[in-house]
Amino acid sequence: MMALSERLPETSGRFAYEGLERVMHEKARLGIMTSLVTHPEGLLFTDLKDLCALTDGNLNRHLKVLQDERLVEVRKGAGAKRPQTICRVTASGRERFLEYVAVLERVISDAAAAAHARKRCAKAVANSKRDLAARWSIA
Amino acid sequence: MMALSERLPETSGRFAYEGLERVMHEKARLGIMTSLVTHPEGLLFTDLKDLCALTDGNLNRHLKVLQDERLVEVRKGAGAKRPQTICRVTASGRERFLEYVAVLERVISDAAAAAHARKRCAKAVANSKRDLAARWSIA
Repeated sequence: MMALSERLPETSGRFAYEGLERVMHEKARLGIMTSLVTHPEGLLFTDLKDLCALTDGNLNRHLKVLQDERLVEVRKGAGAKRPQTICRVTASGRERFLEYVAVLERVISDAAAAAHARKRCAKAVANSKRDLAARWSIA
Repeated sequence: MMALSERLPETSGRFAYEGLERVMHEKARLGIMTSLVTHPEGLLFTDLKDLCALTDGNLNRHLKVLQDERLVEVRKGAGAKRPQTICRVTASGRERFLEYVAVLERVISDAAAAAHARKRCAKAVANSKRDLAARWSIA
């Protein structure tokens, strides 16, 4: 097997995906950020917990991380019966999340290219087998 | 603010993204898996390290995790001068990775829907401002 430099056109760090900020990439936080970006008016803590299938403790812990990064803001609002906690994505949080998503799109297009190449290859093999079979049946 | 059940059509766990297997979701391992799926013939350890911008130690550690899950296989091959380590994605690794990527696609389409809704909204506001301005200039 030859060294990469001799046979592959790819550059160093081609698959390092530098822009995948770990603070948003963590699975639970990815769900929280997507929920909040999808609901720019904000979500009640209790609804966010439900949408992301998280416990109170886990949601609190992850919100703290996102707040420290100024991606999310959390406010106590006045509810009908008791105070309600409202979570919202910040303007810069939204922007950084969309940048993060753009890198995710690169991961997917890389993976999709590989999947399609494989399909094309399988199809070519199937075609050539069919051609061979056709020749034998003629012969 | 109303409770989710009263105003949102989304179901519990809508943003939990259960299929995002943590073993592949970790940023470095995501790069390793994408590299290997893109090179089904296998990659030399040294090339993989370069493509993912990882150190020897980090790549070894992550490969161990992926091997334990039978996503990747690592073999010592005979090189021209010294033995070479070759890394390859397994058939089931490839399959699980493509399932993982399908969930990533859902994250992106969710985020994209939010981004487009925002753009449509901004455009509607701009249009209505322009209409208003036009009316005033006529009056």
